[in-house]
Amino acid sequence: MTDKTHDANPSRRQFLAGAAAVGAGAVAGGSASAATPDPLITQVQDWASGLGDGVDATPYGLPIQYESDVVRRNVEWLTADTISSINFTPIHALDGTITPQGCAFERHHSGAIELRKEDYRLMINGLVDTPLVFTYADLERFPRENRVYFCECAANSGMEWAGAQLNGAQFTHGMIHNMQYSGVSLRTLLEEAGVKPEGKWVYVEGADASSNGRSIPLEKAMDDVLVAFKANGEALRKEHGYPVRLVVPGWEGNMWVKWLRRVEVMDQPVESREETSKYTDTLANGVSRKWTWEMDAKSVVTSPSPQAPITHGPGPLVITGLAWSGRGAIAGVDVSLDGGKNWQEARLAAPGTDKALTRFYLDINWDGSEMLLQSRARDTSGYVQPTKAQLREVRGLNSIYHNNAIQTWWVKANGEAENVEVS
Amino acid sequence: MTDKTHDANPSRRQFLAGAAAVGAGAVAGGSASAATPDPLITQVQDWASGLGDGVDATPYGLPIQYESDVVRRNVEWLTADTISSINFTPIHALDGTITPQGCAFERHHSGAIELRKEDYRLMINGLVDTPLVFTYADLERFPRENRVYFCECAANSGMEWAGAQLNGAQFTHGMIHNMQYSGVSLRTLLEEAGVKPEGKWVYVEGADASSNGRSIPLEKAMDDVLVAFKANGEALRKEHGYPVRLVVPGWEGNMWVKWLRRVEVMDQPVESREETSKYTDTLANGVSRKWTWEMDAKSVVTSPSPQAPITHGPGPLVITGLAWSGRGAIAGVDVSLDGGKNWQEARLAAPGTDKALTRFYLDINWDGSEMLLQSRARDTSGYVQPTKAQLREVRGLNSIYHNNAIQTWWVKANGEAENVEVS
Repeated sequence: MTDKTHDANPSRRQFLAGAAAVGAGAVAGGSASAATPDPLITQVQDWASGLGDGVDATPYGLPIQYESDVVRRNVEWLTADTISSINFTPIHALDGTITPQGCAFERHHSGAIELRKEDYRLMINGLVDTPLVFTYADLERFPRENRVYFCECAANSGMEWAGAQLNGAQFTHGMIHNMQYSGVSLRTLLEEAGVKPEGKWVYVEGADASSNGRSIPLEKAMDDVLVAFKANGEALRKEHGYPVRLVVPGWEGNMWVKWLRRVEVMDQPVESREETSKYTDTLANGVSRKWTWEMDAKSVVTSPSPQAPITHGPGPLVITGLAWSGRGAIAGVDVSLDGGKNWQEARLAAPGTDKALTRFYLDINWDGSEMLLQSRARDTSGYVQPTKAQLREVRGLNSIYHNNAIQTWWVKANGEAENVEVS
Repeated sequence: MTDKTHDANPSRRQFLAGAAAVGAGAVAGGSASAATPDPLITQVQDWASGLGDGVDATPYGLPIQYESDVVRRNVEWLTADTISSINFTPIHALDGTITPQGCAFERHHSGAIELRKEDYRLMINGLVDTPLVFTYADLERFPRENRVYFCECAANSGMEWAGAQLNGAQFTHGMIHNMQYSGVSLRTLLEEAGVKPEGKWVYVEGADASSNGRSIPLEKAMDDVLVAFKANGEALRKEHGYPVRLVVPGWEGNMWVKWLRRVEVMDQPVESREETSKYTDTLANGVSRKWTWEMDAKSVVTSPSPQAPITHGPGPLVITGLAWSGRGAIAGVDVSLDGGKNWQEARLAAPGTDKALTRFYLDINWDGSEMLLQSRARDTSGYVQPTKAQLREVRGLNSIYHNNAIQTWWVKANGEAENVEVS
């Protein structure tokens, strides 16, 4: 934290002065006058005079009914059907960095399949000394690792290339989740099979009908890729690849093959559908960029935002959001209240870790006037998140994927927010 | 990691030799003979030739049906009813360190109540300059923190004082969970109210009928205690105190008051029911220990264990478990295969962090003979987890709470495991 941050923070005395309603008003019942006692304080409530649910009520718990809006959402007009489609993590309503599996975004190419552990097989073949097939029980016998990583779809924010279109952080930036994975290093399994000297790539595919085949350079496959069977401590959900998915840290989500069934060692890439006609960016001159695996540093303010408006008047306001980089850890995040003219350094909830989400906060004393809210991520490689204009200058307007530009929310004086572009 | 650990690990060649079935056997269909091709490999399966679920199938996802045994469980004979009772986290079936909210243990004194954010009030009163009442919306305006902490019920492993009784890590050690909390520092709210010089304690209580009042020294209240509203990124579940609970890092779970409604600053402790007749340990001489808040360093092997037997023959075996300390971070974990005669250092999945669960692994080449499996935690304060005998020597046999003794699983040659005591 720099001194800049401290300048931005209201001191405690300011806080009290700015939010007098916090004390005096609330004692009298929120915005009610001090003359009206708050029955929630002065009277014994039902929940304090009766019994609640027993410990046998929900062997596996779900969110409380009042949080029923904090769910994955899909956008019907984006895709022709829901089987080969996407939905979005409700990042506008979450805090911290861990994404619960139940509301972590999905992207399927032929739907989420149901595959029992007993029916699961993983083949390693191609340029190896010994082709191998592992059962799920086999995988459990190899040394395991635990790591927290973000997974971002390459198409996240894709609709924004052509201008502000989707009104909410969930829809503009919600094709991302961040979980703690437990599994076996892919390197361990490849070494078990023995990679031949001419092996330079692996081709990975899933057990679903799409198979979603992708080529990965051997160097990455032998680095930090995980063959994962748990996320946030428990089994992968069906929609996240139960019982086994690939985790390819920092690289685009399409490579994180679900229901992983085969890893073939090859001397060259396959150049499959998913890495040629899809998941590549066509530049202004008609040439497409090749092998754009790493997700560049990016960030977004999750609150306030169009789905999370400010619901109070001037005074203390928590601005918060997420930042990430596929090239390393987040080194810092800057926030602008005026569309990028001035920047102040946000507070990171914890030091950034490699290829994982970082939560940032900026605590301000809001004067009640409109803002053009932006955040700008910096990573440990020295890379700084670009503006939309900078990105378009290099990439043109044909792209769908890999939009990591700075996002702008126009927060109005009434607290509502809109997705806008600033020149 | 010491050389000892490496000695314990099978080398990769040993692994292949020890688990030949991993390759050759599995290619032919697990334990089937090599002459029988595995139809799961040679034939196109239904899930590869049809479509799965669309992205609109589950706005909020639940575990897949095949994991329906990974749930909280209560033990009927332990308590007179389920309203004032406990259930247990299925730690035997989890990996990593994060506990999903849906299967994180519950302990209620008068049941889990349902309280809307709009009806929520938090009062700070007593020896303060300005008594304050906060609405939920007020709390959202204060600077937030994010931290991962374990919460352990003081009664966790309590039934084991008198000898091995409950057969499974879920029941002996499952009154623990570990989540990432987002919330406001209690210190911030206390400073907002202004603590008078004579204020030395806070008394905290919940909005449920039990109120579950507890006294906390001001020093702790001003240190790392959080007024939390999110766990693992999303709103607290009803059963975990929605919308607001107290997080008292490293201290017994009973102090983590759910549905937090009041914090009173006092000049002395209340000595309430929950901190006198309950949650204290009566020694052999009839005198009870007072103020036993900190949870001592502890660990348990979660697999193999009675609910997670070994289902394969000799060869590579992953031994794993959890370790934690309320006094700091885990510095190391030792594992014994022979009931405490010999110890080897386990591999920590990540360096220990303050007052949070640490996952440990020991990868061995199991010779197929029976084992007396134990784990022993060491924390950054230099404390070493004691044996049951050592603990009983100091505390006698009257205690229910604060049993942090070394646990023993007798793993038989057939892979099944039992809860036993070793002398």
